Amino acid sequence: MQFHHTKLANDLNIVAETNPSARSVAVGFFVRTGSRDETPEVSGVSHFLEHMVFKGTPRRTALDVNRDFDAIGANYNAYTSEENTVFHACILPEYLPQAVDILADILRPSLRGEDFDMEKNVIIEEIGMYEDQPMWSAYDAAKQTFFTGHPLGNSILGTKSSIANLPREQMLAYFGRRYVGANITVVAAGNFNWQHLVRLVEERCGDWPAGQAPRELRRTAGADTVKLVTKPKVAQEHLFLVSAGPPADSPLRYAAEVLANAIGDDSGSRLYWALIDPGLADAADTSFHEYDGAGAFYTYLSGDPEKAARNLAITRRVLEEVERGGLSDEEIQIAKNKLAARVVRGSERPMGRMQALGYYWTYLKEYRTVDQDLQAIDAVTGASVREVLNHYPLTRQTTLALGPLEDLKTVANNGNSRHQALVPNA
Amino acid sequence: MQFHHTKLANDLNIVAETNPSARSVAVGFFVRTGSRDETPEVSGVSHFLEHMVFKGTPRRTALDVNRDFDAIGANYNAYTSEENTVFHACILPEYLPQAVDILADILRPSLRGEDFDMEKNVIIEEIGMYEDQPMWSAYDAAKQTFFTGHPLGNSILGTKSSIANLPREQMLAYFGRRYVGANITVVAAGNFNWQHLVRLVEERCGDWPAGQAPRELRRTAGADTVKLVTKPKVAQEHLFLVSAGPPADSPLRYAAEVLANAIGDDSGSRLYWALIDPGLADAADTSFHEYDGAGAFYTYLSGDPEKAARNLAITRRVLEEVERGGLSDEEIQIAKNKLAARVVRGSERPMGRMQALGYYWTYLKEYRTVDQDLQAIDAVTGASVREVLNHYPLTRQTTLALGPLEDLKTVANNGNSRHQALVPNA
Repeated sequence: MQFHHTKLANDLNIVAETNPSARSVAVGFFVRTGSRDETPEVSGVSHFLEHMVFKGTPRRTALDVNRDFDAIGANYNAYTSEENTVFHACILPEYLPQAVDILADILRPSLRGEDFDMEKNVIIEEIGMYEDQPMWSAYDAAKQTFFTGHPLGNSILGTKSSIANLPREQMLAYFGRRYVGANITVVAAGNFNWQHLVRLVEERCGDWPAGQAPRELRRTAGADTVKLVTKPKVAQEHLFLVSAGPPADSPLRYAAEVLANAIGDDSGSRLYWALIDPGLADAADTSFHEYDGAGAFYTYLSGDPEKAARNLAITRRVLEEVERGGLSDEEIQIAKNKLAARVVRGSERPMGRMQALGYYWTYLKEYRTVDQDLQAIDAVTGASVREVLNHYPLTRQTTLALGPLEDLKTVANNGNSRHQALVPNA
Repeated sequence: MQFHHTKLANDLNIVAETNPSARSVAVGFFVRTGSRDETPEVSGVSHFLEHMVFKGTPRRTALDVNRDFDAIGANYNAYTSEENTVFHACILPEYLPQAVDILADILRPSLRGEDFDMEKNVIIEEIGMYEDQPMWSAYDAAKQTFFTGHPLGNSILGTKSSIANLPREQMLAYFGRRYVGANITVVAAGNFNWQHLVRLVEERCGDWPAGQAPRELRRTAGADTVKLVTKPKVAQEHLFLVSAGPPADSPLRYAAEVLANAIGDDSGSRLYWALIDPGLADAADTSFHEYDGAGAFYTYLSGDPEKAARNLAITRRVLEEVERGGLSDEEIQIAKNKLAARVVRGSERPMGRMQALGYYWTYLKEYRTVDQDLQAIDAVTGASVREVLNHYPLTRQTTLALGPLEDLKTVANNGNSRHQALVPNA
């Protein structure tokens, strides 16, 4: 494995890890832009633009894009998050030139008015589809409530009305501002020749406009509030508890991962034994999300609305106990074993390495080997977990409940409500 | 990469591919038994037994099994098919001894009466869950209709009544007959020492009973019939068209894969352009399944019941055209590119290699490298595809429709019904 990095004259970065024993190549274009970089009037434009990128260029119709990827057997896709829009393909080594050609071509999309109008409907349908998935609605609402007033709370999809009212000119302007040299990193991992890759990218992307795309990085501690969204037609009650965590560039991030895993992994964690094993909740898990300048722990619960108040009380007690007493050495060791196994499994495919490379470069401007990651996990101790808990108290939390329940107080009212019957609103 | 094979005194096989550049190990216990090896009165016992294997041994409670896998960060699971029951785990190299110890231990389960009775309910619930997924119900019914009277048509899950009525003694007897030395292969891939693996397996499995577990291998051409299952509450109409294909040990299997891919891959295939691109159907795909001594092409369609007759007619026309005219060189090349890319992606993880190794050993008693697979795909020509079509005509097919439609004739009545309005039964 060897790391490579260069920068074109327009400040576009290329980073790569070559592995001669791999049998494929994964290549991705990481654009450092997402919902946090949007103003309310263009809410959802990053994700909408991701769709439009596949709708054709001066050289290719939307059909050609599909056919050309298809002809080389590419496994290709794209996604949009709060902070990144990523377009990627995995191919056999002999098809790297075609893959770079297609990806670079579509990253300069025509954004034709006709396609724009048609795709609006697709996006609005997609928003409707997510609205039908209560877990996602609850997640979106929890994020928005916790990051209240901070752009990290912005919805990735936007709303039906923000999309319906978006003028094409706004998308063109957003594209012009955000899809510029210094804001794009081409990332590759697998079996290929580095000089060849650089030549291909230089040829296809060398004339893209240079320029910086700044991001607002003001800090936030997040809110500690309780919110209930009543949806009479939803069968289960869905709850999120959100608290602050270390940001992406913090040395505490590995300890934060261990902490989240020990609290809420899908097997053998504190919440597993407290809620899943005894059959009280259908789902209970905790995950740590890291962002540019911020971080958050998300704990998700779902289950019978009648049990929601009790389950919330149990979860809060688990979080309190961990905050007070920390984790046992055994818990830390098991979480470290699980995380190490995941890092290794994720690293075994060029696709996994490409993602890791892209993230480390986007957030830290550095290269990290798998071994460095494994050492960092191994170095987590009770003391570093304690440091996370001291800096980011789990009990300073926002609670969001979405489901049939109508009574906010009953849900919010911690331990006392444990034995109180709740009447679900069917 | 190096291949290894040995056999214990009780005829249990061990096969492995060691790869010093891998960072993990995948290990699986392949038991050559599944629904085709069941009699009607024990229908579903293979799958039920797979569940029971995790319920404890003389050395471990069910809880211990979970905890012990969890403590080493194992990614573990099991599945049951028509012909195989497979238990597998993926771990970091240092935990191979523990993984083999747990897997070997659970493969000698206690099968306690109390656990058996409790797990019955879990299985019956699982059957209910699958009944709520019309695609799976349709698949099960299509398989049963096509393989009528042949054990390959047996349901993997069984029925609620076959499970409810299954005596524990029958499971014990089935276990005693099928989980014997010559019917089990231990398969490993990744980074480990072969001699060490053999020692571990010898220690844990050397005293397992020897013995053969025969399988009925009578040939079948399958049925060519039409069946409609009316489910008024299902919203979409789900259709399967099933025809015969080459068996697992046929040299034509690669050509059969190319054929299925060109007809019904999820992008750029004949059915994609005929049904998905114009928005006529929600799903349309073809896959090739290979079995011991038999094979089958399954084409699946789903969508608006009002369009079912038309979509069926279009699908039949596509199959007729392919049967008559074969595939174009370009279609063959694209399908080969896609299949090669999938083989490579699948091979990049020890888990993928372990699965491939296990299958080749179980079905062919041979080792095949990734390169041999890629060469075999590359060697497919118009002539070999023609040979598949001549031996296994696509139009000698069984059609199974499941959904709200009540009129079997309208669905079955090929081309003429194309413009006929169908009244769905909401």
